[in-house]
Amino acid sequence: MQESVATVGMIEYQDASPEVREVYDDIMATRKTDSVTNFWKTIARDPITLRRTWGSIKEIMAPGALDALTKELIYVAVSTANQCHYCIASHTASARKKGMTDEMFAELMAVIGMANETNSLAAGYQVEIDEQFKSSGC
Amino acid sequence: MQESVATVGMIEYQDASPEVREVYDDIMATRKTDSVTNFWKTIARDPITLRRTWGSIKEIMAPGALDALTKELIYVAVSTANQCHYCIASHTASARKKGMTDEMFAELMAVIGMANETNSLAAGYQVEIDEQFKSSGC
Amino acid sequence: MQESVATVGMIEYQDASPEVREVYDDIMATRKTDSVTNFWKTIARDPITLRRTWGSIKEIMAPGALDALTKELIYVAVSTANQCHYCIASHTASARKKGMTDEMFAELMAVIGMANETNSLAAGYQVEIDEQFKSSGC
Amino acid sequence: MQESVATVGMIEYQDASPEVREVYDDIMATRKTDSVTNFWKTIARDPITLRRTWGSIKEIMAPGALDALTKELIYVAVSTANQCHYCIASHTASARKKGMTDEMFAELMAVIGMANETNSLAAGYQVEIDEQFKSSGC
Amino acid sequence: MQESVATVGMIEYQDASPEVREVYDDIMATRKTDSVTNFWKTIARDPITLRRTWGSIKEIMAPGALDALTKELIYVAVSTANQCHYCIASHTASARKKGMTDEMFAELMAVIGMANETNSLAAGYQVEIDEQFKSSGC
Amino acid sequence: MQESVATVGMIEYQDASPEVREVYDDIMATRKTDSVTNFWKTIARDPITLRRTWGSIKEIMAPGALDALTKELIYVAVSTANQCHYCIASHTASARKKGMTDEMFAELMAVIGMANETNSLAAGYQVEIDEQFKSSGC
Repeated sequence: MQESVATVGMIEYQDASPEVREVYDDIMATRKTDSVTNFWKTIARDPITLRRTWGSIKEIMAPGALDALTKELIYVAVSTANQCHYCIASHTASARKKGMTDEMFAELMAVIGMANETNSLAAGYQVEIDEQFKSSGC
Repeated sequence: MQESVATVGMIEYQDASPEVREVYDDIMATRKTDSVTNFWKTIARDPITLRRTWGSIKEIMAPGALDALTKELIYVAVSTANQCHYCIASHTASARKKGMTDEMFAELMAVIGMANETNSLAAGYQVEIDEQFKSSGC
Repeated sequence: MQESVATVGMIEYQDASPEVREVYDDIMATRKTDSVTNFWKTIARDPITLRRTWGSIKEIMAPGALDALTKELIYVAVSTANQCHYCIASHTASARKKGMTDEMFAELMAVIGMANETNSLAAGYQVEIDEQFKSSGC
Repeated sequence: MQESVATVGMIEYQDASPEVREVYDDIMATRKTDSVTNFWKTIARDPITLRRTWGSIKEIMAPGALDALTKELIYVAVSTANQCHYCIASHTASARKKGMTDEMFAELMAVIGMANETNSLAAGYQVEIDEQFKSSGC
Repeated sequence: MQESVATVGMIEYQDASPEVREVYDDIMATRKTDSVTNFWKTIARDPITLRRTWGSIKEIMAPGALDALTKELIYVAVSTANQCHYCIASHTASARKKGMTDEMFAELMAVIGMANETNSLAAGYQVEIDEQFKSSGC
Repeated sequence: MQESVATVGMIEYQDASPEVREVYDDIMATRKTDSVTNFWKTIARDPITLRRTWGSIKEIMAPGALDALTKELIYVAVSTANQCHYCIASHTASARKKGMTDEMFAELMAVIGMANETNSLAAGYQVEIDEQFKSSGC
């Protein structure tokens, strides 16, 4: 099922297969940059994962009912809850590029911190779900 | 340091001490509702935690550089990453009250799912942080 | 390597093999109770895991440099951070049996909540580890 | 809602606003040290989060029904479950300052490890919560 | 960007749009069953997420360098570490259908439990990564 | 209960007590290597944890109903879900030693990523567990 998969490290553009280059080109065109980040160069070791992941990201992160910046804030929130340092660093940078101000960053962090705190209080106090939330079906 | 702390269950308004009622009154006034949810009625077993947690939530969730709906989306994102079912249910309901449409919910879920996926890919592939993210200082 | 492993559900004392009964007997004697909880009756489907897990728990949870109650508080803290509802319920009950008062429970929850909050702030703000913590070697 | 928020890096005492200095002074006085750690200097980029977080920590970590060392052990337990390296390093150091011996550290680690193991066994074996834990209301 | 997105609950086959039915049909054909599980019926509220998620799952879970059962074991392992009860239940059932015996299940649980334990020991003891693991590039 | 416990750092073979050396010798004999990794040298600060952890690992990771490579893949999956960088690095290396090819690694990562994604979708969409999974008792 897999084509050639590289053993270790990152695949630079000049060393990439045509299929990998095609994805790199699309990433750079979509993001209006002239290089791709380490995340893509590393998962490019598996061209199938590279293509599927980029395809999903491109579809999901495009502005829709939520704008591109809001989506980056959500991405940072999940990455922070998961303690994923790479994704915190890269998506915080992306959010800044898309207009996140220092004030917005500060409030983002405060909400993330509070959510983590009450997540544990709700669990530790064994809070029962309110009937209204159950019946609302959401 | 603690005043009276109730053993189990939830503290209903009619059984609450004046200090707890004061917090309940502020929650209902701020949220324009005539009852408080199970989360508050449960942590009210410890009036100090009740007061501090509500004080923080009120300060943090008020509209600022980020609007109130965006803050709820971030709250849902963290709660979902943490698998906190109570907070997912209650903050999804709050987000709907503040204007989250079905389309926005669908996109919120998609971003959360994608972030969780790439968080694990970044970890599993042991991706190194790009120099540009380190030097950006964010 | 495995002996007989039961397919589903819980193994009651009367249905248990001699090896499983031996562990049940030791649990009940150690804990001064006349029954074992669902956790043990469920993992008893694999007698090897039952024996090893009980052996480890018995060794680890015995009073030592830390007393038995402190160990239960730590157990609740980890279980809450992990959103493990079974272990939160069972170890909160164990902590109460070992003397946890309502005031202690309230403070336990407050510390857990705060730790979860600052864990995410430290990650999201990408705080660098202080030299003094690195050199201390702990 | 926010006052001036700094873009990146840490806020040193000499560069701090009067409001930030007031918090730093209180941290140093409370902890009997002559400097503040990177955590505080980093979140000081948002003076509101700095003030609220310090206020909560000061209230929560003061000795009460639980002594100060027990609270640090709980803090390390949560931080370890969450894989928060900064908080593991800083609160392990704090625990040592407050009297944690090597033996206590060893037992702390053993309990944390065991709790993480049984948290996953309880989930994976889909253990049902015992009636006695449900009815106990805790 | 989105087409019609349903508000709440699950989308049954008879109520589904042609696009959703096409995915349901492919799920049932691929899995050789005559119904789809709640997961699919729920995310079908967003046809785009339904289509993309199914497309990815179908590609990823097909036998390749790893056989289908091994992939299910890995799925259960991740879901257990994340305390995702729905995915634990559904993928444990899938694993059994694909040949997981009671002995295999018992060993799967034991490895998951051990990994969770040593994950926390490695973090809490602040173990440094060995040079050999760094240089190996994996 | 504890014997001598070392304060910081790693215990090298030449500095180890006879009890610690005995464990080191067994690790090296079992793994057919002439050194032990940092994980063991660090937790050796507590000889009791060293002995118990090695005993459990040796029992659990031995080939049984699941072969040794499959067990390593499961170990990597849990470690990745938990963002434990040490265990990701060391068990990825172990898996390679036991025969994991690049293709297998690529598929392992893809399954881990997908499981993390659907774990969060199942939680965020609040998917109800199917009756068939409840009744199956697994």
